[in-house]
Amino acid sequence: MRSLAATFFKNLQDSITNRIDHLDGRSKFKSDLWQRQDSSGAHGGGGETRILTNGAIFEQAGVNFSQVHGLLDKEMSSKLVEKNIDLPFFACGISLVIHPFSPLVPTVHANFRYLEVEDKAWFGGGMDLTPYYIFEEDAQHFHRTLKNTCDKHDKGYYPKFKKWCDQYFYLPHRAEARGIGGIFFDYLGKDLTPNQSSIELPKIFEFVKSAGTSFLEAYSPIVERRAGIPFSEKEKSFQLLRRGRYVEFNLLYDRGTLFGLKTRGRTESILMSLPPIVHWSYDYTPIPESREAFLLDIVRNPKEWI
Amino acid sequence: MRSLAATFFKNLQDSITNRIDHLDGRSKFKSDLWQRQDSSGAHGGGGETRILTNGAIFEQAGVNFSQVHGLLDKEMSSKLVEKNIDLPFFACGISLVIHPFSPLVPTVHANFRYLEVEDKAWFGGGMDLTPYYIFEEDAQHFHRTLKNTCDKHDKGYYPKFKKWCDQYFYLPHRAEARGIGGIFFDYLGKDLTPNQSSIELPKIFEFVKSAGTSFLEAYSPIVERRAGIPFSEKEKSFQLLRRGRYVEFNLLYDRGTLFGLKTRGRTESILMSLPPIVHWSYDYTPIPESREAFLLDIVRNPKEWI
Repeated sequence: MRSLAATFFKNLQDSITNRIDHLDGRSKFKSDLWQRQDSSGAHGGGGETRILTNGAIFEQAGVNFSQVHGLLDKEMSSKLVEKNIDLPFFACGISLVIHPFSPLVPTVHANFRYLEVEDKAWFGGGMDLTPYYIFEEDAQHFHRTLKNTCDKHDKGYYPKFKKWCDQYFYLPHRAEARGIGGIFFDYLGKDLTPNQSSIELPKIFEFVKSAGTSFLEAYSPIVERRAGIPFSEKEKSFQLLRRGRYVEFNLLYDRGTLFGLKTRGRTESILMSLPPIVHWSYDYTPIPESREAFLLDIVRNPKEWI
Repeated sequence: MRSLAATFFKNLQDSITNRIDHLDGRSKFKSDLWQRQDSSGAHGGGGETRILTNGAIFEQAGVNFSQVHGLLDKEMSSKLVEKNIDLPFFACGISLVIHPFSPLVPTVHANFRYLEVEDKAWFGGGMDLTPYYIFEEDAQHFHRTLKNTCDKHDKGYYPKFKKWCDQYFYLPHRAEARGIGGIFFDYLGKDLTPNQSSIELPKIFEFVKSAGTSFLEAYSPIVERRAGIPFSEKEKSFQLLRRGRYVEFNLLYDRGTLFGLKTRGRTESILMSLPPIVHWSYDYTPIPESREAFLLDIVRNPKEWI
């Protein structure tokens, strides 16, 4: 499963970066290969980070592939498999964050990963959309694509993973969701015995492949519809403020970011999720009934888009 | 002690905001009074946040006073006084962060606080400087002022609190200090028995008063020396990138920020520490031997300024 999963994630990185290159039309991804040292100093895997900056459409897009292994410290082992000792681990995955220049094109995040800790193995991941201005058509398309993908595997997946996503991408200190959600799942397969695992894990992998492959279908049409529309300075300025919330979520709460930094991941590859330009403005309040107020209303009261 | 400490911090807020108003000459602080609800919904104190924005010198300056009380949850009690139960607490203090417009004027942070949890009482605080370009004269003046202040109370304070500051304002994922440090101290008085406390706590309070009062002496001359010097776009751009590190520290590691958000403090008052405009640039590396490279060298190898 290690090699099947890693190969799929690597190929997904190729197909996504090719398509984003093509959509942008101006900038192209640049690649950085990196190696990881384990806490003991031993070789602990590595990865490939691809970054596109200053595009015609994308201000910054990062698509990471990584495959790492080594010893997980007690604290992390205890969080992941409830054992308070250092444990061997293996992890591979793809993680992407795309920050478009236009405030009318949503930011998007996706991540799919396969983990092994001692004798447990599982998949996790998902994708979620962070628009600055709400176009119902776009929100519905994104969620509809995810629902269709989930339904092919298990009718229970979409409602469960949609709710999980709303709960996960949540900023308690703002009482706001990060965006309009999508799907989020974790620990799929973790409770299986080794016997069950050989039958069930491949099924879960099929779902993860569908979900990963559906990313471009869920996101590209939204980019194509909105990227050409002119926008105002006021709209750009609202995007820069909302990007502050993105930073707050990633640094205060995101498990992937904190896991990466704690396990001596490559800082630049992890923090490529942060937007290139961000504003904070003390006590900003939008004008009542404005489109900015409408966005705040949506993130404060996550809704069903389908 | 509650009322003595609160009165001192409130007056310090007045004298600092008056002086910063005067230094800036264009913008003035605006005041927000706020009330805090405890987790039970009961009145839990409040505070006054003062913010100056778009000044001639200061892009944003925030000076908070707060005085809060209520029940501390188990997690926080366990961190602060090693008891795993909800405990009554009282806290008052002043906290300030000043982000100048010019990259030649350093960002500064100061915080002084008095805490009581159950039958323990202590002071904490300090101040530290975050320059973007190093002027040795400024760094030395800042540290010299702090050393002189400390020495009046205890010759052991400056070396101990300087080291503590370097250790506290540290970003492990960057292997960098946040800036050039200053002093940091915490739990002063916490280990005293109630009998000792009535004699020793007032002495500690005298030190905290000296330290608080020395803030303007430590910072103002640096502003006066550097604010009028023209700077380049390249210098401004480096400041915006370095501000990203400031955000990373505050959201990933700063105990005050995390304590504030967890104890249902006022989010806007806590996050006024974040700079108004911030850039992140993937894998930025300064030109060798440049002044930008010199700053990186300084934050990677904290030095003695005196």
